[in-house]
Amino acid sequence: MSRTSPGYAITVRVDAPADAGATSGLVAAVSRAGGALTALDVVESHADRIVVDITCDATDADHAETITATLGEVEGVSVRKVSDRTFLLHLGGKLEVNSKVPLRHRDDLSRAYTPGVARVCRAIAENPEDVRRLTIKRNTVAVVTDGSAVLGLGDIGPAAALPVMEGKAALFKQFAGVDAWPVCLDTKDPDKIVDIVRAIAPGYGGINLEDIAAPRCFEIERRLREELDIPVFHDDQHGTAIVVLAALTNALRVVGKDKGAIRTVVSGVGAAGHAIIRLLLAQGVHDIVACDRRGIVHRDRDGLDPARKWIAEHTNPRDATGTLAEALADADVFIGVSAPNLLTGDDIATMADDAIVFALANPDPEVDPFAAREHAAVVATGRSDFPNQINNVLAFPGFFRGMLDAGAHEITDAVMLAAAGAVADAVEPEQLNAAYIVPSVFDPQVAPAVAAAVRAAGSSEGEPR
Amino acid sequence: MSRTSPGYAITVRVDAPADAGATSGLVAAVSRAGGALTALDVVESHADRIVVDITCDATDADHAETITATLGEVEGVSVRKVSDRTFLLHLGGKLEVNSKVPLRHRDDLSRAYTPGVARVCRAIAENPEDVRRLTIKRNTVAVVTDGSAVLGLGDIGPAAALPVMEGKAALFKQFAGVDAWPVCLDTKDPDKIVDIVRAIAPGYGGINLEDIAAPRCFEIERRLREELDIPVFHDDQHGTAIVVLAALTNALRVVGKDKGAIRTVVSGVGAAGHAIIRLLLAQGVHDIVACDRRGIVHRDRDGLDPARKWIAEHTNPRDATGTLAEALADADVFIGVSAPNLLTGDDIATMADDAIVFALANPDPEVDPFAAREHAAVVATGRSDFPNQINNVLAFPGFFRGMLDAGAHEITDAVMLAAAGAVADAVEPEQLNAAYIVPSVFDPQVAPAVAAAVRAAGSSEGEPR
Repeated sequence: MSRTSPGYAITVRVDAPADAGATSGLVAAVSRAGGALTALDVVESHADRIVVDITCDATDADHAETITATLGEVEGVSVRKVSDRTFLLHLGGKLEVNSKVPLRHRDDLSRAYTPGVARVCRAIAENPEDVRRLTIKRNTVAVVTDGSAVLGLGDIGPAAALPVMEGKAALFKQFAGVDAWPVCLDTKDPDKIVDIVRAIAPGYGGINLEDIAAPRCFEIERRLREELDIPVFHDDQHGTAIVVLAALTNALRVVGKDKGAIRTVVSGVGAAGHAIIRLLLAQGVHDIVACDRRGIVHRDRDGLDPARKWIAEHTNPRDATGTLAEALADADVFIGVSAPNLLTGDDIATMADDAIVFALANPDPEVDPFAAREHAAVVATGRSDFPNQINNVLAFPGFFRGMLDAGAHEITDAVMLAAAGAVADAVEPEQLNAAYIVPSVFDPQVAPAVAAAVRAAGSSEGEPR
Repeated sequence: MSRTSPGYAITVRVDAPADAGATSGLVAAVSRAGGALTALDVVESHADRIVVDITCDATDADHAETITATLGEVEGVSVRKVSDRTFLLHLGGKLEVNSKVPLRHRDDLSRAYTPGVARVCRAIAENPEDVRRLTIKRNTVAVVTDGSAVLGLGDIGPAAALPVMEGKAALFKQFAGVDAWPVCLDTKDPDKIVDIVRAIAPGYGGINLEDIAAPRCFEIERRLREELDIPVFHDDQHGTAIVVLAALTNALRVVGKDKGAIRTVVSGVGAAGHAIIRLLLAQGVHDIVACDRRGIVHRDRDGLDPARKWIAEHTNPRDATGTLAEALADADVFIGVSAPNLLTGDDIATMADDAIVFALANPDPEVDPFAAREHAAVVATGRSDFPNQINNVLAFPGFFRGMLDAGAHEITDAVMLAAAGAVADAVEPEQLNAAYIVPSVFDPQVAPAVAAAVRAAGSSEGEPR
């Protein structure tokens, strides 16, 4: 299943003989080593020798070394240096802070800084609501993490999480014009995280919790929601749930089933699974069976933690027990937010006709999507090299754009359902098919549509504008 | 002493008759009301009427209303609306966060975000020092405040302090290319502030404490310095001390006195006064007498707090006692970082010949600078409408530029003296005179010179590069 990716792109600079066959020998070497050539640039040319930059995608770091070694074995060729394009891109970080106002001369300084700024400060001190009008709070979101559950990497700590948070902030700006800033916390204590986020909140219009491990993330989110007057969104929960619901809405349209009548299995009861279950219930999906490592979560199971206890009490109306594979029999929908390779194509074959399979574990799904496709009508993953990528970037930028514009703070089920509806409806009826149940992440119309839906749903809750 | 300022600029839109004398009537009205006209734009023109935008500087908000009223009294003129240019500039805040990397298509996303970013995260997890190379930590400074001592406004809280911190961040970028971000904290508890700054430190290459009231600021700074591996700078202390020392160095050059032989009086023992005294001592200024509201600080005074006790033990070698005015007799240098209008010209007259007076209380100095000039050889203030403006922007941008570039974290006396020397030397010998002892805040050569000096002094302390 390993494919070359631009995420593993390298540029290899080599010395080669200046004869007619030299570059074709290099191209052949990349091909032989399994690399995907994307560029070949002659950067120096001499009478007898040339210097060539060969850029290609590899599958992983070892593969990049294999490609480099294969190039070095070509007769007359020597490798000068290898540049990793992903690392080059990250040098010095991915974000910058810029002034929106000019500071060219004394008059500018008098308005943007002293003495003029004192009047603006005084206005906010006298009328605290003005902070949303006269400062960056109007348009800023803190991307808060403790680095405890980053991508598939686990607990790598706050510093190592920073590149992900920077990327997230870049996406916020790119897709919705939101100014987001990474807040990587060197503590995993929920009390301290709540304290810190509460203390920094004056400068932000919203909080996006990111990659904080369950179950701590639930408590942190709940307490912050109670205490803050700005929206608190946990992307691993709310973002994922919104996009999954959007994809499910369209998948059901494809197979012609009704959400009130389907049987659904959710694998994984962490942050994402929990939020998906909550939102599906709010949307009228009644028959949900949740599974974890020990199999089906049911009322009579021993040792349920509070999160699982809530799930046991609100799902599994048929009181099913057994393994994940057993739960799948006759199910209409499988939603996996758990671990790689838990299921085979044969397991999927036991599902009802026109089954829907969302295998979202990253980077390797719960079931090989190619095998699943042989037995299911609609298959989606989190991967970018397979149709129907379930990607949170479809939700979070537009979601915060809408919340900030509405001046809303409460993330109600109604607001989330509105966002999911907007994502689903961004696929036009004539575009909709089993291989296109969610819009492209690069579709520029998605974020504005989500923002408009959130704005409407958020404002109608009576929040200040 | 009130003068019109661009910090109080208004634009008044009026309807006026379309006759030859209309605009001259408007100009005359502004002049009559004491406003300083900066622009007059006819924005609409009809057969019988015109619409005119009149932009002018006022001295304060009341004066702006007087100007508006005077315009409304001109025959045939009616005021449509008044725009405050300082408030207009602040709408939506003064900062934005931008991505430095492109995110146009899938390949970009694969490198800047998943899956490529995971390798960068892993590299940092394996080699923590790489965070300075591969993330925004390389170039970012947190501008941290609790909003307890903002400008001359006092304890206005974290939200109302935000416009000042945004302005500060804008100056960091403008003068030294540093990406600075406001961190406005909704707590005044030193333990919590230390905890919070320690927790957010992974994402920053430096901490700039700002407008935190004394004596809490001393404890917070000291503890953070001990615990963090990035520079912790308190601008109200270190920035002010650096620029004061630079100005004093040049003022002594003007009057031809030696720093080892002068008598100096410092009025104010808060954050700034304390730091100025420390740095002057490090620079070899021996005879310093510090004063607070109760007069001269001396060893035998009752009820000295720890900060004043330190000052009493390290200054006042002649064991002087009495009032501030009494301390001034025969002094060569007065440095005020205290309160407005404590002294008169007559008090300055008691100082030694060729006296130097830095009256830095803002917005109104310790002594009227025009009165002081009748008796002193060199006078400086914090005001922009008087020669010799002592402004921290001469120090902090270049200071952090140098620290970040050197990868240094300890702010030693040597580094601060180097920075002060660079600011002083930015005034060329042929430019130096009693009305030009510090460079212009808009001199683009100051920050690079400070950065180079700090880099050299910081690197020589054996810090990692």
